[in-house]
Amino acid sequence: MSILTLTTDFGLKDHSVAAVKGAILSELDNAHIVDISHLISPFHITEAAFVIKNAYHNFPKGSIHIIGVDSEITPENRHLAISLDGHYFIAANNGILSLLALDVKPEEIVEINIHDRVETNFTVLDIFVKVAAHIARGGNLSVIGRKLENIKQITNITPIINQDSSKIIAHVIYIDNFGNVVTNVRKKDFQNIAKGRKFEIKARSNVFKKIHDTYSGVVDFTVAKEGRNIEDGRQLALFNSSDFLELAIYKSNPLTVGGAASLFGLKLRDTITINFEK
Amino acid sequence: MSILTLTTDFGLKDHSVAAVKGAILSELDNAHIVDISHLISPFHITEAAFVIKNAYHNFPKGSIHIIGVDSEITPENRHLAISLDGHYFIAANNGILSLLALDVKPEEIVEINIHDRVETNFTVLDIFVKVAAHIARGGNLSVIGRKLENIKQITNITPIINQDSSKIIAHVIYIDNFGNVVTNVRKKDFQNIAKGRKFEIKARSNVFKKIHDTYSGVVDFTVAKEGRNIEDGRQLALFNSSDFLELAIYKSNPLTVGGAASLFGLKLRDTITINFEK
Amino acid sequence: MSILTLTTDFGLKDHSVAAVKGAILSELDNAHIVDISHLISPFHITEAAFVIKNAYHNFPKGSIHIIGVDSEITPENRHLAISLDGHYFIAANNGILSLLALDVKPEEIVEINIHDRVETNFTVLDIFVKVAAHIARGGNLSVIGRKLENIKQITNITPIINQDSSKIIAHVIYIDNFGNVVTNVRKKDFQNIAKGRKFEIKARSNVFKKIHDTYSGVVDFTVAKEGRNIEDGRQLALFNSSDFLELAIYKSNPLTVGGAASLFGLKLRDTITINFEK
Repeated sequence: MSILTLTTDFGLKDHSVAAVKGAILSELDNAHIVDISHLISPFHITEAAFVIKNAYHNFPKGSIHIIGVDSEITPENRHLAISLDGHYFIAANNGILSLLALDVKPEEIVEINIHDRVETNFTVLDIFVKVAAHIARGGNLSVIGRKLENIKQITNITPIINQDSSKIIAHVIYIDNFGNVVTNVRKKDFQNIAKGRKFEIKARSNVFKKIHDTYSGVVDFTVAKEGRNIEDGRQLALFNSSDFLELAIYKSNPLTVGGAASLFGLKLRDTITINFEK
Repeated sequence: MSILTLTTDFGLKDHSVAAVKGAILSELDNAHIVDISHLISPFHITEAAFVIKNAYHNFPKGSIHIIGVDSEITPENRHLAISLDGHYFIAANNGILSLLALDVKPEEIVEINIHDRVETNFTVLDIFVKVAAHIARGGNLSVIGRKLENIKQITNITPIINQDSSKIIAHVIYIDNFGNVVTNVRKKDFQNIAKGRKFEIKARSNVFKKIHDTYSGVVDFTVAKEGRNIEDGRQLALFNSSDFLELAIYKSNPLTVGGAASLFGLKLRDTITINFEK
Repeated sequence: MSILTLTTDFGLKDHSVAAVKGAILSELDNAHIVDISHLISPFHITEAAFVIKNAYHNFPKGSIHIIGVDSEITPENRHLAISLDGHYFIAANNGILSLLALDVKPEEIVEINIHDRVETNFTVLDIFVKVAAHIARGGNLSVIGRKLENIKQITNITPIINQDSSKIIAHVIYIDNFGNVVTNVRKKDFQNIAKGRKFEIKARSNVFKKIHDTYSGVVDFTVAKEGRNIEDGRQLALFNSSDFLELAIYKSNPLTVGGAASLFGLKLRDTITINFEK
């Protein structure tokens, strides 16, 4: 059995996702297909990169991940198949895979060149499924493409650190289902710079001086429930389960009271500053 | 093959659901994973309880149901694994499972105590998946937790009946995809009280004197189509497929003309009154 | 292993879709269930017809497609099981299947008559699943229904062509996830009428004189990136991957700048006119 995952901006109403699944099952009758997300904002490379990076490593090695975001082939947007960390990824060479390659060097990168045999305006269906089926059957990447040394990079995927390590200028890279704000600051990078110093995280008019380990870290459970202020709605900074710095509201509901993004007035690509004690 | 279902408030855009599925497939390579819902309103225990109650019994006995709503462990929110009606459920002890236990006594309840071995802020991924895998492999509940006699209850899950059985004070517990309004009045409870008497259901300014068996029950098909008023948009009360009393609009579309909830001006937790003839 | 697909207007929050999947797995323990769409607009027969037509043929022959849109049985809305193009379809006889039958004659049509044995207000769960299980086990259609010669038609599914073939009056039949506007003009029909003549496609105040093969067809890649106007947002007509005429915006995002539908001011059922040179 082969595990194939799908990450696209196709949405969940149209026939597109199902067409791709049907095509996979027509090629591989024992495929196990898992949706990662089909709600990536249209053509949003950074969102797709963030979602696939946080999802893929939970799957068994050997899984094949198809990414259908901004994937129409043009002279400036070629197609890649890469192996990295024991997984396979098929996507356009538009920067989507560069976040994965921050920590782990790809084992193999090829630029897919089976296109002269296929004419299409539904890339994922007509190209990526064929490539995935080839890999699932044990085929080599070198058969379906020519070797590359590097892949295209996304800009602003890592924060800027000033020369004397007194400041990190970070960005919002994702806003999650609860409205919580994910920055591009990673735990290990933060710790390398902080070296135990005091710090202040500034996000517009909000200031955080502590980074929690859990959402409920803001709640003092030693005070009896009746004696506490209601803790729902308290703001906090934490390293989330993906080890990114996140600004959150405890038990926020973006549908009613608002989530961190709306309450803090933050949106994608906004700046967050961290100042360290000298 | 083990069947595992997922009910969460994670939404469908983030990587969270896929991360959980990947972790399950890494533990159990022949798992059959089915989504129940990932669109539970954030932290909404009653919605989750209602959805899982109406879904689970359609699955084969032995299925394992993971519920990831308000599941962060705190001193006040412990984790449960229970067996009930031949199914397994893994959730926080926050009342979510109490609606299930209204009709059927749980066969076994344990409070999960494998946490001292796991540090996490992604409970479902790091705890519930491990518990599910243990159960799927045939492990006993007693190995992963200590026995409990009772689980926490949700309030307002059942309607109030006055002393002389002349009145039911009910609440809206769910609003469905068509905007139809589901109350907490169940068919068998209604019939026990009604004993064939006439009644009036009042929901704000709307009054219903009949409970239908089907949505199309409001339409008189003996009149030729041309002679009928257009029946789309007629309001009705019925016992729905889950045997809850529902206030509905025939062929309503909440996206255009509005559904029952918006047309009747009803929202979650609003009161509905049923008066019986003396 | 049997492949069963689901196309409904149940939405993704309620328990309904999962209830159906549970019921299928209770009947067929090795079923492979694939969602086509559960976000069909409530009771929208044309949308459902369009989505199923474009999805089904990608699946392996022998797949069973359940369509739960406007499926409550009434004296005017009976239930069908048909075989067509090597696939099976189960749906109400309300026109949903007529778009499929435009090109391919059904091999067999029956009106389901197992209802006298089943009382339900959840048709898909209680009737369609049983019919699907019967088919998946190799049962004949004739056992579960009586033979019909024809199925109900949807109106306006094909465009109107004037007598001297100088004009096509078409309609918008679908608006996709990117806001692109799909018309009911199919490539082969257009080419039969056009016979290489010049033409003008008019959609409100927008005029298109060329039909592209790909979305990026509007971009002139021979001009260096710096010298080009930004091509995102250019409007174009193309034959899409389903071979329907589509009016699109290159890399449109309906969530931010708007998609073709909002920018062109077009909605479902609006008219598009194509005039040919005489």
